[in-house]
Amino acid sequence: MAIHTLIRATGPRWDEATRSPFLDALAAGTLPADALHRWLAQDYLFAKDLLAFQAILLAKAPRNCHQPLIEGLAALNSELGWFESQATRLRVDLDLPPHATCRRYTDFLIRCAYTRPYAVLLAMLFGVEASYLAAWSALAPAGPYAEFIERWSSAEFGAYVAALGGLADQHPHEEAQQYFNEVLVHERAFWRMSLEG
Amino acid sequence: MAIHTLIRATGPRWDEATRSPFLDALAAGTLPADALHRWLAQDYLFAKDLLAFQAILLAKAPRNCHQPLIEGLAALNSELGWFESQATRLRVDLDLPPHATCRRYTDFLIRCAYTRPYAVLLAMLFGVEASYLAAWSALAPAGPYAEFIERWSSAEFGAYVAALGGLADQHPHEEAQQYFNEVLVHERAFWRMSLEG
Amino acid sequence: MAIHTLIRATGPRWDEATRSPFLDALAAGTLPADALHRWLAQDYLFAKDLLAFQAILLAKAPRNCHQPLIEGLAALNSELGWFESQATRLRVDLDLPPHATCRRYTDFLIRCAYTRPYAVLLAMLFGVEASYLAAWSALAPAGPYAEFIERWSSAEFGAYVAALGGLADQHPHEEAQQYFNEVLVHERAFWRMSLEG
Amino acid sequence: MAIHTLIRATGPRWDEATRSPFLDALAAGTLPADALHRWLAQDYLFAKDLLAFQAILLAKAPRNCHQPLIEGLAALNSELGWFESQATRLRVDLDLPPHATCRRYTDFLIRCAYTRPYAVLLAMLFGVEASYLAAWSALAPAGPYAEFIERWSSAEFGAYVAALGGLADQHPHEEAQQYFNEVLVHERAFWRMSLEG
Repeated sequence: MAIHTLIRATGPRWDEATRSPFLDALAAGTLPADALHRWLAQDYLFAKDLLAFQAILLAKAPRNCHQPLIEGLAALNSELGWFESQATRLRVDLDLPPHATCRRYTDFLIRCAYTRPYAVLLAMLFGVEASYLAAWSALAPAGPYAEFIERWSSAEFGAYVAALGGLADQHPHEEAQQYFNEVLVHERAFWRMSLEG
Repeated sequence: MAIHTLIRATGPRWDEATRSPFLDALAAGTLPADALHRWLAQDYLFAKDLLAFQAILLAKAPRNCHQPLIEGLAALNSELGWFESQATRLRVDLDLPPHATCRRYTDFLIRCAYTRPYAVLLAMLFGVEASYLAAWSALAPAGPYAEFIERWSSAEFGAYVAALGGLADQHPHEEAQQYFNEVLVHERAFWRMSLEG
Repeated sequence: MAIHTLIRATGPRWDEATRSPFLDALAAGTLPADALHRWLAQDYLFAKDLLAFQAILLAKAPRNCHQPLIEGLAALNSELGWFESQATRLRVDLDLPPHATCRRYTDFLIRCAYTRPYAVLLAMLFGVEASYLAAWSALAPAGPYAEFIERWSSAEFGAYVAALGGLADQHPHEEAQQYFNEVLVHERAFWRMSLEG
Repeated sequence: MAIHTLIRATGPRWDEATRSPFLDALAAGTLPADALHRWLAQDYLFAKDLLAFQAILLAKAPRNCHQPLIEGLAALNSELGWFESQATRLRVDLDLPPHATCRRYTDFLIRCAYTRPYAVLLAMLFGVEASYLAAWSALAPAGPYAEFIERWSSAEFGAYVAALGGLADQHPHEEAQQYFNEVLVHERAFWRMSLEG
């Protein structure tokens, strides 16, 4: 697949958002348990707010976006269920306040959801999901967290990301690149927080 | 199934919202084509705005509402596709302005979606769907529009309505009855408009 | 002052929205008390929702709209106080549910406030206020309701309406005329409801 | 005046939000010009988003909040005009992107404006303004920036802050303290950014 224009034009932010010592340690089996648990809880809290972002985007979006956005909501709902079962298994408490870094990211998303046009929000959602796919797909699906790696480097998740990229292409907006870039800055900070606390 | 409290307490509005000469004529095969076409186009326009209502509700709703609300969005998306294929088959133009009666109903829904708490919105959505189920389920699934009748008296649609009623029970609100009642008044007006123009 | 383009292009809706038997009877001193009281209460309820409309518009509007929109909010707040003192004087209960006609109008306004761009909302606000100015300015400021007539045909109110017309000119939008027209249809219905109940 | 409950219960956050090396240097006449210019531009950008926050709060607020909130909007509009004239005088460009610290603060405010109840927003607005009053009132109104100091330690500004504190008292909410606290954390970061870039 050709590299999406939004990704190509964002420059070094892309690598900064999709590579992290957290992921390297996870793949190598050397991640401290407290970092894994922090990531699990904070990513869960992030995903709950992302669901609200996607729902508000859906409310604004035209007819040809409905199907992929609703499929994305269904997938995100399954993901929340998966986080809940992992948290039970690993005895991680999900009823926590969000970390400041998580909160900044979701404050940004929800503010934009209510105030930006749907075409900008499409580019943002593509940024969230495409960078997540790239980050996990770079890892070998082995070791204690193979299931995690496979989850977000699957063909199914790849097809969803490709569909979002297609929607962003069909609905361009002059502010799309700027907000796509900002998403990546938040992604980078989130990975760092997951490792460092 | 026991009659839901919201239905029992609404009084004669329930019958007024769920029985109509439009539906009687449709079941009897005596419905004028122009009334069918008007209903088809206006119900499609209504459903597009209902999708926005449901999406904004989802953005506000707590975790245990996510699954049924997302399934409802997926079903509504399929329904929009079904309307589009029926419109093609029957050569009905869907690119129309909404009728004043349709517009009043969706103005009410969208205003509430942005300004009322999610628990009120759950009661409203239950009102929309439960009255639709009751209206169509009262008809014999035969004649030229058997497919229409079966669509909205199916066990699957009944299960969705029951799930919405359950959510309304779990999330009560002192304003729920009032807004449920208002939905039914709009439902009644919609059926009348469909027949009379 | 030249007639504003939005007014000229709206056709007969303008006269229909700005002339009414209610106002003729009020000026002639023949208005039944119950009609005056109904109008007073319903216009008060309308104005409270109009305040919300104007506030949401302000939140979306660019810098050069701030001053007139905030002055408009201050004037509307004074107007609400004036209605409250008139209601006390005339022993009219303001704690009523809105009439269906009032509710339809504010459902339309609030829905648009949340979903339409600010430029469309400017045209709508101009429609609300310009038609009100025209309706009251056509009456001779005499008789038992001279104070009412003077209130909405004052030079100050005229200057505010002219400022709103100027903002609508500076911030045109392809949907402005359509929504301006819809405002006038609601205005007409409101006057009729005030007289007829 | 007794110390407001929200202030007393917030603990050391209050001093951290209302004392800063930036203000000490400003009062002592030793503030570097680039820090002053950065503060001027970023506080202007902040105030523009605060205006949107206040407008959305107004749209949600009950009748007895209207007058003080609209007066607050008028004062904020004057303040924006004052910033614009200061920027012209000092040749500071106001057409800049917000600093990440400014953006985090306004992302938080705007997200809450759309998603939190008005009573929480009242507590937040009180936090923004009361901490600003306290920060400037601690300085001697002398030196090159005496006008700045006088502006935000004036009796008029004090009366507005007292009115907001009164509204927060009349409309308590269980989440008020938490969101008040978060405002103060953003205030502290803003002062630091103003000095350090």
